Amino acid sequence: MDKITLSIGTGGEEMTQFLQKTVFPILEESISGDAALVNHTAFTIDSFVAEPPFFPGGSIGTLAVSGTVNDLVAAGAKPSALALSLILEEGLDMEVVRRILQDAKETAKLAQIKIVTGDTKVVQKGAADKVFVTTSGIGQKVLDFESPAPGDAVVVTGDIARHGATMLLASKKFELESQLTSDCEPLCWLIDVLKPFEGFLKWMRDPTRGGVGTILHEFCSQFSLGVRLFQKQIPIMPEVKGICELLGLEPLHLASEGRMVIVISPDKAHEFLESLKPFAPNASVIGEVVDDHKTLTQVVDGYETYVPPLTGEILPRIC
Amino acid sequence: MDKITLSIGTGGEEMTQFLQKTVFPILEESISGDAALVNHTAFTIDSFVAEPPFFPGGSIGTLAVSGTVNDLVAAGAKPSALALSLILEEGLDMEVVRRILQDAKETAKLAQIKIVTGDTKVVQKGAADKVFVTTSGIGQKVLDFESPAPGDAVVVTGDIARHGATMLLASKKFELESQLTSDCEPLCWLIDVLKPFEGFLKWMRDPTRGGVGTILHEFCSQFSLGVRLFQKQIPIMPEVKGICELLGLEPLHLASEGRMVIVISPDKAHEFLESLKPFAPNASVIGEVVDDHKTLTQVVDGYETYVPPLTGEILPRIC
Repeated sequence: MDKITLSIGTGGEEMTQFLQKTVFPILEESISGDAALVNHTAFTIDSFVAEPPFFPGGSIGTLAVSGTVNDLVAAGAKPSALALSLILEEGLDMEVVRRILQDAKETAKLAQIKIVTGDTKVVQKGAADKVFVTTSGIGQKVLDFESPAPGDAVVVTGDIARHGATMLLASKKFELESQLTSDCEPLCWLIDVLKPFEGFLKWMRDPTRGGVGTILHEFCSQFSLGVRLFQKQIPIMPEVKGICELLGLEPLHLASEGRMVIVISPDKAHEFLESLKPFAPNASVIGEVVDDHKTLTQVVDGYETYVPPLTGEILPRIC
Repeated sequence: MDKITLSIGTGGEEMTQFLQKTVFPILEESISGDAALVNHTAFTIDSFVAEPPFFPGGSIGTLAVSGTVNDLVAAGAKPSALALSLILEEGLDMEVVRRILQDAKETAKLAQIKIVTGDTKVVQKGAADKVFVTTSGIGQKVLDFESPAPGDAVVVTGDIARHGATMLLASKKFELESQLTSDCEPLCWLIDVLKPFEGFLKWMRDPTRGGVGTILHEFCSQFSLGVRLFQKQIPIMPEVKGICELLGLEPLHLASEGRMVIVISPDKAHEFLESLKPFAPNASVIGEVVDDHKTLTQVVDGYETYVPPLTGEILPRIC
């Protein structure tokens, strides 16, 4: 009998298999992307099980609100309200709950959105790991996307993989000292920056679980197009790069929780980067959409290599 | 330092304290009822941690969809879409996930609503108890409520406390044999039955966690009114009554997952019951709104007694 494995939760190849074999056939829904459109309302849900619940740069509360806001933004929607549900383990310090709610509130304030409804369940000691947060969000669809085409530019709004690397260190699995903090933040400002580029926008997604690599593999498979990345142009902190080299990890597979990957017409890419700069100084064109192969490649030192999809478990419970 | 206790999760007095002391001050939101209204959209979220996940009459999948549909209906909204998020324990049989999703799908079909988006997280073995399901729902507000007044009739759409009693037996804490099944079901048909009575409808809530007693206590406190129940008129299966007597439990504190409590003008109560009959043959007027005391009482054999709010933990993880 098939069993649930941790690798199903990493956002990579096994997750895709699980969705295609188990979830979609039963629900008979073509759930794609991270938000659905119901009339003109974007609607999304995400559970957060991050361990530890507090990490440098935020907490599971920051993460839950940022993640849901960013899923709405990625769908081209202006977030209008959030719902937040807690599953708490008996015996947990009330102070932990207070701090998580406080972080959720502050992040929501930053995103100019309110948490309008919620729920709390308590399970016996040992039946959950401290606290799980599920957030759902609704927003008004305000941006439409055109079809992507070869030549389109792939833009990222900031340095990648910082949340994944931070959680890796916070998990204490490795004895590494670091000043690294998560990139976790709500990208509510992005909708206004994007609006003047409507008509040139092709696709958008936040590179959370599975990282930039996983969402771009999804892009390739959804549109039967390829993406060629230029490693030199991918913003990444030297420390994150160092951690990845040390541990043999591909930074393209590590999560960012405060970044967006945007595909835009090449003739508008420069102007778009200029508009992003006040909010996202490290935004960069990291690649281009191509037709000649239907997958993800990366140009490193002049050589183009295949970037495989994420398989196995690298980072349980980063979000 | 305060700790999270199981009693916070039962829906009774400790839950109220937790919400008032910890949740509301931080969120600065007056979250009331089980759904919020954002423009004309009702929006709700609920986490389900029922143990066991399968029980006579349904599963955590049936429960999650029914609970969310019923929260929307209780807000006077026609459900339009659901989002469903799973937290799965590593090692869980895939077949368990399939059956839960199948139940969710069938319940959604019954409620004529679609699950349009979702999420899955996997946690390490021992970090969760099998499976937790969180559902969020949106719906269109179609019914308005007038202010309740003394004399109004309190109607319940069917026999009460069956879900709570079923879960109590399913938990195997007691050696009792029974044919009892949960009342768990989506009340999507109710909106159409209620529509002709708009203008006479005063209040509505599904008596889940904490049962009929808890939601009526909330009613009394919200409107500074009292409710007088007539025990003889409260529909309850003899078997449920027997279990409650045996275990010393108040059936008014046990959950129903497929019932609605409706407050309506007394002059319309009879006609409303007639309209309910084809869908809810056991619907009954169980009490009246009163002004002379601001709390919940029950008339038993001619004597009026106070029904205290639920305190302590009686039934962990029934929903």
